[in-house]
Amino acid sequence: MTVSSDFIDVKAAASLLLGMDDVLIIMHRDPDGDAVGSGFALWAGLTQLGKNARIVCEDRVPDMYEYLSERYRGALSESPPFSHRHMVTVDAASSEQLGSYGERSGEVDLAVDHHASNTGYARKTLLCSDSASCSEIVYHLLSEMRIQVDEYIASALYTGISTDTGCFRFRNTTAESHRITAKLIESGFDLGLLNRILFETKSKSVLSLQRMVLGSLEYYDGGRIAAVTITREMMLSSGAKEEDMSNISPIARSVEGVEVGLTFRELEGGFIKCSVRTTALADASKICALFGGGGHHSSAGFQCTGDMSEVKGAVIGAVIDELETEKAQ
Amino acid sequence: MTVSSDFIDVKAAASLLLGMDDVLIIMHRDPDGDAVGSGFALWAGLTQLGKNARIVCEDRVPDMYEYLSERYRGALSESPPFSHRHMVTVDAASSEQLGSYGERSGEVDLAVDHHASNTGYARKTLLCSDSASCSEIVYHLLSEMRIQVDEYIASALYTGISTDTGCFRFRNTTAESHRITAKLIESGFDLGLLNRILFETKSKSVLSLQRMVLGSLEYYDGGRIAAVTITREMMLSSGAKEEDMSNISPIARSVEGVEVGLTFRELEGGFIKCSVRTTALADASKICALFGGGGHHSSAGFQCTGDMSEVKGAVIGAVIDELETEKAQ
Repeated sequence: MTVSSDFIDVKAAASLLLGMDDVLIIMHRDPDGDAVGSGFALWAGLTQLGKNARIVCEDRVPDMYEYLSERYRGALSESPPFSHRHMVTVDAASSEQLGSYGERSGEVDLAVDHHASNTGYARKTLLCSDSASCSEIVYHLLSEMRIQVDEYIASALYTGISTDTGCFRFRNTTAESHRITAKLIESGFDLGLLNRILFETKSKSVLSLQRMVLGSLEYYDGGRIAAVTITREMMLSSGAKEEDMSNISPIARSVEGVEVGLTFRELEGGFIKCSVRTTALADASKICALFGGGGHHSSAGFQCTGDMSEVKGAVIGAVIDELETEKAQ
Repeated sequence: MTVSSDFIDVKAAASLLLGMDDVLIIMHRDPDGDAVGSGFALWAGLTQLGKNARIVCEDRVPDMYEYLSERYRGALSESPPFSHRHMVTVDAASSEQLGSYGERSGEVDLAVDHHASNTGYARKTLLCSDSASCSEIVYHLLSEMRIQVDEYIASALYTGISTDTGCFRFRNTTAESHRITAKLIESGFDLGLLNRILFETKSKSVLSLQRMVLGSLEYYDGGRIAAVTITREMMLSSGAKEEDMSNISPIARSVEGVEVGLTFRELEGGFIKCSVRTTALADASKICALFGGGGHHSSAGFQCTGDMSEVKGAVIGAVIDELETEKAQ
């Protein structure tokens, strides 16, 4: 895809939005906290200005974000029929991430995003790749539009910032993430409740899978590499879902002394999914590129077919090479 | 103990400290991240002003805070012999918490603390019970003294704020915690490295115990109560230590739908230690008071002797009563 978008700043994007009405806000598929937070905050902001807006997404909004979805559904039931005149996407780097809505990505008036990999699919793009979350950009956008950050908007934006930074633990967290969060807390939403929903509650399935995964821990290279293996049987008996994997993939690297954590998972049809998490001492994306995958320096992945023990052996060999190479540099 | 202390504000405390030299800083026993962070930040601040200062504590500073201890030890090796003329405590609510240093608590010139339960043991006390951490108070104190928050001081204060708020998850987290953190990050310490040390690294012993604990999960009262049991055998075979329990006690309450999480642990000499964690729907301190213990609304504990299954039965009965009472209100 050729990058043809006009990249604009917050001021220009705010002015563009102020001129719109009947806005369709599109969240990326498999919506995470940042997509949901950015989407609902923008919807509430536009509504505050008396504009009509709707949110759509190829996939369902996860139940945990019910505290945001509820008010939206309530508002819909009182609204007249809607036909959009403008389209805005949030947190979506490419038209593929919009699912079936991607077919009309050329008609998207504005993409608000923080992914450096944004393909420029929209007519205009507000891209801030230094922002830890798209919700931080939406915060600035709403401020520029002089929209009051009320309790609902604050809880939506907090959802996005806190989930995309792993509750302020990940390396992408910046002073700005904390500065905006301080302002959101002053708007008076129930911080304790949200933290409990977002970070302190685990389903019985996740805990059950976690237990089995801890039992599968293996160490290599004198404890610098840890690997866990998830069989289909473990997924079935625990009842864990795809969305639960974000709780599982960090386990292997979390062991003291481990530089590279590997998660091997059996999928249907003979596929194996491998997730690689590293410290600064190894490049996960370099390791995964050898197997046709990709990602970031500290977190990457790939899928392949083959025998589990052979795949494991090959990956562990590649990780040892990578650790040796990095050491030599 | 009678409260005889003179409670002063940040301005007065700063002026008091500016008039001191040869300062002995005392951290509370079993020092946590906030005691260590407040202590080392205050030491570095006083040193920056050309003052002599030393830090003492009844117990060892845990190894995980080596990034703070290292510089202190280095500075000591170059310093002349020291004899203190003033004593300052950080994060210590009572003279008992000072261990053997508590015998001279009447000589403490200044206590800097955030515990509402502070007994007023020191001559003067700077108490800010709304602060999530003592490190936030030390931040204001250093600012008032016009001490530059350098990389080292920032990493010490971040250690205190982030650990006392559970990395910004606990209910005590305020807008101020985030606002100060934003300023600390701008001072340029390695946030990613500290988060990894403080929150993303677990020992093999903890993970091994975690696995056994997950296997012991039991549910009562239709899933509103969860309990885990830790036998002495589990402690021995995992190699987990007392300080590892902070990773274990939150597990039972973290299960979806659970209002009260109980952790029962066998100790030496036939004792049983029970930790109670609750949501807003039940008062943990009320439950524990029935068994001679105490604590806060959402986290409390007690020790007793007796047969494990009888103790469990009694506690679970008390929890059901508490949940019924709260519902009726």
